Amino acid sequence: MASGIDLAVIPGDGIGPEVVAEGLKVLRAALPAEAKLETTSYDLGASRWHRTGETLPDAELDRLRSHDAILLGAIGDPTVPSGVLERGLLLKLRFAFDHYVNLRPSRLFPNTPSPLAGRPEIDFVVVREGTEGPYVGNGGSMRTGTPAEVATEVSLNTAYGVERLVRDGFARAAARPARRLTLVHKNNVLVHAGHLWKRTVDRVAEEYPDVQVDYLHVDAATIFLVTQPQRFDVIVTDNLFGDILTDLAAAITGGIGLAASGNINPSGAFPSMFEPVHGSAPDIAGTGKADPTATVLSVALLLRHLGHETEAARIEDAVTADLAERDAESPRTTETIGDALAARVSA
Amino acid sequence: MASGIDLAVIPGDGIGPEVVAEGLKVLRAALPAEAKLETTSYDLGASRWHRTGETLPDAELDRLRSHDAILLGAIGDPTVPSGVLERGLLLKLRFAFDHYVNLRPSRLFPNTPSPLAGRPEIDFVVVREGTEGPYVGNGGSMRTGTPAEVATEVSLNTAYGVERLVRDGFARAAARPARRLTLVHKNNVLVHAGHLWKRTVDRVAEEYPDVQVDYLHVDAATIFLVTQPQRFDVIVTDNLFGDILTDLAAAITGGIGLAASGNINPSGAFPSMFEPVHGSAPDIAGTGKADPTATVLSVALLLRHLGHETEAARIEDAVTADLAERDAESPRTTETIGDALAARVSA
Ligand SMILES: CC(C)[C@H](C(=O)O)[C@@H](O)C(=O)O
Ligand SMILES: CC(C)[C@H](C(=O)O)[C@@H](O)C(=O)O
Repeated sequence: MASGIDLAVIPGDGIGPEVVAEGLKVLRAALPAEAKLETTSYDLGASRWHRTGETLPDAELDRLRSHDAILLGAIGDPTVPSGVLERGLLLKLRFAFDHYVNLRPSRLFPNTPSPLAGRPEIDFVVVREGTEGPYVGNGGSMRTGTPAEVATEVSLNTAYGVERLVRDGFARAAARPARRLTLVHKNNVLVHAGHLWKRTVDRVAEEYPDVQVDYLHVDAATIFLVTQPQRFDVIVTDNLFGDILTDLAAAITGGIGLAASGNINPSGAFPSMFEPVHGSAPDIAGTGKADPTATVLSVALLLRHLGHETEAARIEDAVTADLAERDAESPRTTETIGDALAARVSA
Repeated sequence: MASGIDLAVIPGDGIGPEVVAEGLKVLRAALPAEAKLETTSYDLGASRWHRTGETLPDAELDRLRSHDAILLGAIGDPTVPSGVLERGLLLKLRFAFDHYVNLRPSRLFPNTPSPLAGRPEIDFVVVREGTEGPYVGNGGSMRTGTPAEVATEVSLNTAYGVERLVRDGFARAAARPARRLTLVHKNNVLVHAGHLWKRTVDRVAEEYPDVQVDYLHVDAATIFLVTQPQRFDVIVTDNLFGDILTDLAAAITGGIGLAASGNINPSGAFPSMFEPVHGSAPDIAGTGKADPTATVLSVALLLRHLGHETEAARIEDAVTADLAERDAESPRTTETIGDALAARVSA
């Protein structure tokens, strides 16, 4: 940890700035005294758009590119038309910085309430493709607003894009104790994209004889997530299916208040971006009710990505210990949770 | 119930024939003595394909068209390449007979085990579009099998197709006690298709001031399905999202052994088709372990569609009563369950 970290921070909207403040607090506590953390804050999101009409100007994208990594709070506000900030900012970042690995670990921590009866053991990671599929923005509409309107959305999938994601998934599966990988798609209906995924997994699987491989249709996968989540270890899946499965995965592991994510460019050519899965939750912004844990766990993913495994694990242990002592009857504020986690991490 | 019912039956593969036999038994028991039930069985599915290479010849499609309705068991077998029977038979029927309303009720019956802690009340119906979206089969691949492969899947959505489905959903919502309708889509990413859906729902909503309307992204909808399923009454959604949500809905209401569905052409120009949501389950075929209840509930939907509301309700009441007395410790055979339901229905 000699060189320090040059971090871009996008606090964003709603509870974004509040949870990011705690994330940074814990990050500082985790770093050894001699490690330098430099942060640059970027004013992006709903309020910027309301003020200037801008979502992500090219100059800002260029500046963001120079950092080691990006920490993002949450983007969005009901006053902005749906799609404007998602396509113009969030997805633009993922696409511009080639964040093809959208990494979303799901773990049911001890003492965390689960909506599932019997609290099954849950510990898997979704490796969601981040730059292709139905997310590419290749669609349109004609005769819009008339009874003759036609609207399309095109899912684009390439061998290049699928293979690099699948390879990342296998590498992660091989490094985990259970060594299981499940491909989730819908190859009985989306036959062209689905068969590309299936063929790719089958081929790469030959290089990983120790990894046990399985295939599930996305609809069946949702069933197993609630009836038998223990069966999952590493899930590799397309952009849209990954979006759906990871919200469900968050729900069964205590809610999106705990779900972390990384938008990763493994090559290092671009900075990777880490963000909680939850949104800006404008209804509780400013109340101190937001749980910063998802952001703190995203900071752990960030540290791991930058090679600081010890510090990452320290943060995750702190979260585990903190969750074990939580009492649903007496919830703490955003800041109190951040303080407690920072104290544990630096102890 | 003067005229009787001329029913096409597609038993299909695996447990299909077993559950269909019980479905027909209960159907016969529900009909008054003077009502004539005529059934014609069609040999379609995996074994036909293995024998002849055919999935659904045009002549067969023509003959099927002449019936009042179709009862289907289950199609599929691991020995048939993924997609062959789905695209060539199941989806071909839905598309050829313009089954644009894919109706899937979800109810947690008393005494039925649920994977959700606390057994929340669940009683909603998913009105899934059945003839458009990513299911249209508009996709392809180039340079297939090479590192330069590109594969596409196109989601096609029309004002015509979306509006008729949305109208059906509102009519159903207006007729239910709770009168709530939730549109599920992903209009922050799939902006063209999503906005067509949203605009259509907003416009039709003006004609239904008594129906309370809500919008959820598909990822958020999966969260609420496991944390707060009580919030749903009628869900209208696209073909693919409906596929995913209804398997999850089945899982939280006791499993796909109980999930019924109707592929409905409301105009009556074509026969509607009724089928359990579950598949052919080849692993338990012939063991007597298959639960015919999903098929029996599909028969109730069939009767309701043909105007026999009293008989439909009688079947549903019989299922409710039977489920209330089930003992998970001593499971009954397919036939025993069918007999019990038939006895209740004719009592
Ligand atoms: C906000 C939205 C564009 C985004 C997505 O669909 O990927 C979100 O749901 C997520 O999962 O990060
Ligand atoms: C078998 C498959 C084509 C089908 C679908 O995707 O619609 C099934 O999953 C269903 O839900 O009826």
